[in-house]
Amino acid sequence: MMASVTGTGESVSAASLRRLPSYRQYLKVLQGMGREVVSCSHIGQALKLNPTQVRKDLAVTGIVGRPKVGYETEALIEAIESFLGWNNLNQAFLVGVGSMGTALLGYDQFNHYGLKIVAAFDNNPSLIGQKIHGHEVLSLDKLTDLAARMHVLVGILTVPAQAAQSVANLMIFGGIRAIWNFAPAPIEVPEGMVVQTEDLFSGFAVLSSRLAEVMGIRRKAGVNADANRR
Amino acid sequence: MMASVTGTGESVSAASLRRLPSYRQYLKVLQGMGREVVSCSHIGQALKLNPTQVRKDLAVTGIVGRPKVGYETEALIEAIESFLGWNNLNQAFLVGVGSMGTALLGYDQFNHYGLKIVAAFDNNPSLIGQKIHGHEVLSLDKLTDLAARMHVLVGILTVPAQAAQSVANLMIFGGIRAIWNFAPAPIEVPEGMVVQTEDLFSGFAVLSSRLAEVMGIRRKAGVNADANRR
Repeated sequence: MMASVTGTGESVSAASLRRLPSYRQYLKVLQGMGREVVSCSHIGQALKLNPTQVRKDLAVTGIVGRPKVGYETEALIEAIESFLGWNNLNQAFLVGVGSMGTALLGYDQFNHYGLKIVAAFDNNPSLIGQKIHGHEVLSLDKLTDLAARMHVLVGILTVPAQAAQSVANLMIFGGIRAIWNFAPAPIEVPEGMVVQTEDLFSGFAVLSSRLAEVMGIRRKAGVNADANRR
Repeated sequence: MMASVTGTGESVSAASLRRLPSYRQYLKVLQGMGREVVSCSHIGQALKLNPTQVRKDLAVTGIVGRPKVGYETEALIEAIESFLGWNNLNQAFLVGVGSMGTALLGYDQFNHYGLKIVAAFDNNPSLIGQKIHGHEVLSLDKLTDLAARMHVLVGILTVPAQAAQSVANLMIFGGIRAIWNFAPAPIEVPEGMVVQTEDLFSGFAVLSSRLAEVMGIRRKAGVNADANRR
């Protein structure tokens, strides 16, 4: 699945942000092996990234490596987590216990990323009251009040396209500030809120386009296209 | 969820590719409304993108709009689909019928994106022979032969991290050329193959970082960091 990035100015930023979790994951492996210092070129080699890109990406966290030495592994992990807000556990509500919502509820890795799903909601009477991966499904009409009462900031939206905006509105009324949108529909939110829309097919676009290329089933693109793709 | 992009040189390309599905989706809406011609600025406004970015993204398909007129809607849709290989239906095998695999099997939109999951595999005896969203689950040991026999080119990997490489190898032996990897692990493939690794947390990194920013819980980053994020 993929995330849509809105606005040209933000795309470099988003690309760097999107790589931070893999840096962190790799640094944790190194940390587990007792490695205290690591260089950009080492990280780049492991993750198949250009060392200059690595340096640039990591600079967003405010940490600068020492020339010929590199980064202190532990300090770098902490800087990434602090930058991403992953050192504070975010409580989240999930709305829409269909196949995608169920898959996310069953994902036990969230707490490693500073995220804890504290309640799940649906408007389907046959789901309400059921336990899904240890989370009781609550009625959608409780969402706004509970969000406000529990000061929940993150909403995960896994509803069908036609319900996306109305459920997002309930989240907004409840004081939720960031919506992780898996619904196949754009949503409108007030200024100062954060929306990250995931689109399964933007990743698939990358895959299928490159497959068409390696299989030679795509006609050669023009010079402009090549220039853009480098 | 997100896709990891490998290599600096490719990131611009991948960002453009990732936006193509949303252009296509919007163009189809316009087409349904009978709109025959559309401009970059109109598309940009609807999708909250800079018109220059739109023009650049669309240029990768080889289509160039006419000044002061724009693009022919239908021709542009066809160019995007042809570029992405979505006008030829790709048959795919899915391996790993856990919560993610089940969610993908239940997703009925794939055929609109040129993708048809023709078989599902698992090594869990209690799953084999069951029907999940209309797909019978086959034993993993049939994967390689069946892939070769059916000339399947796309493999969808939804197995746990520790099984990712061994299942990828079975796909490779079966002649699969593109692996859509949802396992939380990198996989190695031979030259000339395509891998698109989806990482749920690269999208979450964008969300949580921006939430930290709007909530003011992140210390101000330095000048370098700001420069990189613009």
